[in-house]
Amino acid sequence: MKFSIVAFLAFAGASAAAPNASVYAGNTKKNMIMMVSDGFGFASETLARAWVQQSGKYPPNWMSVIDTIMVGSSRTRSADNFITDSAPGAQCFSTGTKTYNNAIGIDTKYKPLGTNMEAAHRAGYKTGLVVKSHIADATPSVFAAHAANRAMQDLISEQMAGLVPEIGQNVDLMFGGGRCTFIGNSTKGSCRKDNKDLYPIMSKNGWTNIVNNTEFKALKATSKLPISGLFTLSNMPYSIDYPYNDVPSLQEMTTKALDILTEATKNSTQGFYIMIEGSRIDHAGHSNDAGAHIREIIEYWETIKIVSDYIDAHPETAMVSTSDHECGGLTLGRDNKYYLYPLVYTNQTKSQELACDELLAANITARGDLVTNVIVPKYLGKKNASPKVNAAILAANSTSECYLAMSAALSVDANIYWTSLGHTGVDVAVYAKGNNVTGVKGNMENTDIGNWITNYLGVDLAPVTESIKNTNVFQYPFTRPNTTFVFTYPGTE
Amino acid sequence: MKFSIVAFLAFAGASAAAPNASVYAGNTKKNMIMMVSDGFGFASETLARAWVQQSGKYPPNWMSVIDTIMVGSSRTRSADNFITDSAPGAQCFSTGTKTYNNAIGIDTKYKPLGTNMEAAHRAGYKTGLVVKSHIADATPSVFAAHAANRAMQDLISEQMAGLVPEIGQNVDLMFGGGRCTFIGNSTKGSCRKDNKDLYPIMSKNGWTNIVNNTEFKALKATSKLPISGLFTLSNMPYSIDYPYNDVPSLQEMTTKALDILTEATKNSTQGFYIMIEGSRIDHAGHSNDAGAHIREIIEYWETIKIVSDYIDAHPETAMVSTSDHECGGLTLGRDNKYYLYPLVYTNQTKSQELACDELLAANITARGDLVTNVIVPKYLGKKNASPKVNAAILAANSTSECYLAMSAALSVDANIYWTSLGHTGVDVAVYAKGNNVTGVKGNMENTDIGNWITNYLGVDLAPVTESIKNTNVFQYPFTRPNTTFVFTYPGTE
Repeated sequence: MKFSIVAFLAFAGASAAAPNASVYAGNTKKNMIMMVSDGFGFASETLARAWVQQSGKYPPNWMSVIDTIMVGSSRTRSADNFITDSAPGAQCFSTGTKTYNNAIGIDTKYKPLGTNMEAAHRAGYKTGLVVKSHIADATPSVFAAHAANRAMQDLISEQMAGLVPEIGQNVDLMFGGGRCTFIGNSTKGSCRKDNKDLYPIMSKNGWTNIVNNTEFKALKATSKLPISGLFTLSNMPYSIDYPYNDVPSLQEMTTKALDILTEATKNSTQGFYIMIEGSRIDHAGHSNDAGAHIREIIEYWETIKIVSDYIDAHPETAMVSTSDHECGGLTLGRDNKYYLYPLVYTNQTKSQELACDELLAANITARGDLVTNVIVPKYLGKKNASPKVNAAILAANSTSECYLAMSAALSVDANIYWTSLGHTGVDVAVYAKGNNVTGVKGNMENTDIGNWITNYLGVDLAPVTESIKNTNVFQYPFTRPNTTFVFTYPGTE
Repeated sequence: MKFSIVAFLAFAGASAAAPNASVYAGNTKKNMIMMVSDGFGFASETLARAWVQQSGKYPPNWMSVIDTIMVGSSRTRSADNFITDSAPGAQCFSTGTKTYNNAIGIDTKYKPLGTNMEAAHRAGYKTGLVVKSHIADATPSVFAAHAANRAMQDLISEQMAGLVPEIGQNVDLMFGGGRCTFIGNSTKGSCRKDNKDLYPIMSKNGWTNIVNNTEFKALKATSKLPISGLFTLSNMPYSIDYPYNDVPSLQEMTTKALDILTEATKNSTQGFYIMIEGSRIDHAGHSNDAGAHIREIIEYWETIKIVSDYIDAHPETAMVSTSDHECGGLTLGRDNKYYLYPLVYTNQTKSQELACDELLAANITARGDLVTNVIVPKYLGKKNASPKVNAAILAANSTSECYLAMSAALSVDANIYWTSLGHTGVDVAVYAKGNNVTGVKGNMENTDIGNWITNYLGVDLAPVTESIKNTNVFQYPFTRPNTTFVFTYPGTE
């Protein structure tokens, strides 16, 4: 295991009534840390907790760090669908307004909506985004971009880099993946449709742009903002695959970001506002990969611990953590059987994503050996697999077939089930700690959380919305979606 | 629809920060209302909420009454299994001690454990149990009985009726089903192994024993305790099947019980302690019957509303509501599809239980017509079902096959999934309102809830445990279960 399980023991037996809310009595300067555990449901937390508790042989009432600051739950639907995608889900946190699936920072009429991060930046806060996905993926984008569809990542990247004049520059620090939309398509690794290179323009505008772990390690607390650190072309690796691609972890990016933002605001009357996302908890749900899912959750917990310690030292800081939605329809129990064996995932050493990439890239004649001698026993950590299990993986002809076969290879033993490769709609948990978070509790609409942040920051979104109203939110040919909420199964009425 | 949907509109838009906790500043007399939503998980609440919100075309941020008092979540495992059954799950509420699956009021060494209801009764509280299951089923039993296995319902019934001298009489009022273990096996409808008739002995001991709705309606607030009202031989009907068997609803039983207990304690220095269970939320999960599940949840909500109003008028009262576990592995989303159509369940008029009973009792030659013309279109409310759907139900040879086929007939359209006919292990929600409940919040172990109740009541369980230590907890030939918690999937290490 690549993480320190011992670090969690400190939380064992913590009181359910642990005081996690306070009101900072100092000056009015304050910090906001919004943490998003993308695609993380109650089943995910229960499974990861059981895995760590059993791995460490901790007491049965062991709690994760996040359990000790649980305050309520959130309803996650979007404006047009009971099952939201990440874009409108996270937009509720940045604007307090629901919108249709796939929309980025706009309402259901394609009108750009000012975000609390944009308003905070204009009010003098320093701002940051720390993620493990593409930085122009849905969740980070909705804090600082405006587009009719999340797929318009070229446009979104330009907006987030501050290159669209109507919007201006609203992000001071961004760490994550997704360099491919920042480099023109004549450069290897680009995923842009055009040959526009954002980095030279950003540099001219004062950005420090770093792209690897060596440069990241060289960053100091006093490094000057704005800073972009995009360490991979697309998503950053799953923590189960570290040190794959040699990137900083979510914990490392978070620590560095907090150091830099703290230093940058130390002489300011305003603090900072950062959004930190455990982006790939969701991705592991999409591939029904419980082993990677558990490790991403643990990485997120360790990040929460860093933020929690930061708050203890900086009581002017509030943190809210929640999910935009759950993912995968994970259940703990299947086929009428009463047990759960989370330790089935202990010996998994590689994500299903990398394992399936390797399998599907292999010559067809080599696959039998690869599955039987490498993928199943070493990557999935399943010893003595039946020929049936191996054959099911070998038969996979597509990435999703491969995910389903690998998932089934372990989930039957663990007695868990996944019902979808997509998002699912059950309420998700809300966690909070720090300055003035007493109002964050109970069962909330996802928009309540965004409105709470806006109020906490003391900013007004209306002037921002007014100032960006003519921003172009279209880039590619785009078909208007049906944004009418449909209640009834088609054809049944 | 047989319930009043309008009653819920009052809760629309309620603030997430609604003050649901207070400290009663009057005298030290207090009441405790423990509410158990058996087999009710976060997915269940989300589904039922969506169904009512869409049925009533209420605003998207509509909340159920229970949403407005949500305070945290509970971890549900038992001493020997990650997936608990109702007996050890509810025993955590009555004793604060975990035990093995199927145990009733005893520890893992078969030692009887005093319960907070027994301690409360000895301290002068009046006590009650209101359920929709057999009164000697697991959840009510663990408050006032002690047996090595929940199947020992003959023994359990005698204990709950106060007929075992070592234990004494600890329940003043019981409403529910399960008369079959109170009548000797020479009487039609008995399910006892012997011919012991409990009612004559109970009558001699002062009990008023009623068995039907007419007698129930005749009960007055001033009716003298102890009172038993067992309205069916086994479980009471699902609310979707009302007025089947002409029984009082959970709401009616609750209102009457609160009236009687309030009157009985009005001149006392001690209040009352009652456990009220939405027992069949769980049963509908076991049969993967979302239509019945939703209606049982709504009946539970309406009962919560009654209790909530009672607390408003009687601030010396605390209510905690939670589940012993979730059931069925319900997920909202399946097969990679992003939608939810809860209104698929609107036209269902009968539980799968009654529909399957009718189908499996029918002559084989009559079943085709029954399925095609009655069960699918009228009971399940599915119009224009494909021949494949009808054929799948017709092919059912057992109750569980029938449940699965009927469940699938609707759940594909609704885009929900059930992964088990048994319990599942995800954390469940905790709700609280009233006197001094501020400490009930966050993520809790199920035992924390029982310990909270015991402390709130101000009672001591140790003397009760001591006084019942020689109680016989065995009745039938009984094999000692393996009460060692197994971490690892057998054969994988």
